[in-house]
Amino acid sequence: MTIEELTARICAFRDARDWMQYHNPKDLAMAIAAESGELMQPFVWKTPEQVEAVAQEKHDYLRDEVADVAMLLFEFAHNLGISVEDAILAKLARNEQRYPVEKAHGSNAKYTEL
Amino acid sequence: MTIEELTARICAFRDARDWMQYHNPKDLAMAIAAESGELMQPFVWKTPEQVEAVAQEKHDYLRDEVADVAMLLFEFAHNLGISVEDAILAKLARNEQRYPVEKAHGSNAKYTEL
Amino acid sequence: MTIEELTARICAFRDARDWMQYHNPKDLAMAIAAESGELMQPFVWKTPEQVEAVAQEKHDYLRDEVADVAMLLFEFAHNLGISVEDAILAKLARNEQRYPVEKAHGSNAKYTEL
Amino acid sequence: MTIEELTARICAFRDARDWMQYHNPKDLAMAIAAESGELMQPFVWKTPEQVEAVAQEKHDYLRDEVADVAMLLFEFAHNLGISVEDAILAKLARNEQRYPVEKAHGSNAKYTEL
Repeated sequence: MTIEELTARICAFRDARDWMQYHNPKDLAMAIAAESGELMQPFVWKTPEQVEAVAQEKHDYLRDEVADVAMLLFEFAHNLGISVEDAILAKLARNEQRYPVEKAHGSNAKYTEL
Repeated sequence: MTIEELTARICAFRDARDWMQYHNPKDLAMAIAAESGELMQPFVWKTPEQVEAVAQEKHDYLRDEVADVAMLLFEFAHNLGISVEDAILAKLARNEQRYPVEKAHGSNAKYTEL
Repeated sequence: MTIEELTARICAFRDARDWMQYHNPKDLAMAIAAESGELMQPFVWKTPEQVEAVAQEKHDYLRDEVADVAMLLFEFAHNLGISVEDAILAKLARNEQRYPVEKAHGSNAKYTEL
Repeated sequence: MTIEELTARICAFRDARDWMQYHNPKDLAMAIAAESGELMQPFVWKTPEQVEAVAQEKHDYLRDEVADVAMLLFEFAHNLGISVEDAILAKLARNEQRYPVEKAHGSNAKYTEL
């Protein structure tokens, strides 16, 4: 299924409930941030050695949060006339410029500090 | 392009730079939350009347942030063996139970408070 | 009680449990963001007309989240040798320049757009 | 200076600009989360070995973000009739129950998993 097809299902769910009145860009962005906070929660205080085990133990929880963030993000983009696919491809192209392999290889520095 | 194909490109970009060493689930979740914060930023303090105008003025910025969140989310899911598509479809099915049309229509209450 | 006295209690609690090993700046910043997400949660999707009622209904929850964010923020600042009081006074002085009353009165524009 | 005195200055700054109309609990909570995202940003992708150096290099930036989060949090609490000091002391007392020294010593588990 493409992102557009998934988004059509998400919007159908919303419209059957007459929720568009609440789904303005501000509230959608806020909801994305709130759900992203939940996605991050299980990893707080965890050491690098613990992280993979946490990801496995919390697999179902994280899958649920991935769905929440993705659904809200796809709808946010759709409502603003943004194609997630085009946005990603454009960003990848820009990051190719910002992070050329020869400079960025093995580095976790931001492009402004490379 | 499917989410899997987009994700393959994202992972190829990462691997060409040997960045997997930094892309553990904790840092990915943290990056998703940080980028979600940026997505939300233009809407802070804005009144309902201003929100659509802000979304238009900041269209390019928001498109960029949508790409950032989506790329990180797709990679996070991929690394954990989570299919974003399956996760969304499962969540939509669950939300059909939690938010039946007859109870949820026109309401912005959480399912626990319906 | 001053912020310093409250911070001393927070650090004593932490040290009695030997938690400093987990309380590096990265995890503290992540915890602050995660708790801030929880503080925001009750307001998602709520209309301007509903916001004050939500704040009252969720008073105890919000008080709890205020404590979580404040405790982590005070400790973060303390560990980095930052005085919260001095930081606030310095920021207020800078904001006096950025947002002069005659330009900023009644406006919700960012200083870069005033 | 006490938190109350700092908060009085923050509110005087706001009122001189007639900003209370924008400072409802929802927007304040959103602003706190957005600023917390900025506080977290410099640490994304950084290894445990790099974290302290990042905290030093970005000291002025982090001090600025600490001020932003603290100012918004103090105002949020004030507007809702919450004493930050009382909230912290109540939370510390509760955490004494949730995390008894003999069980929590040296552990980064959540109280529900101790």
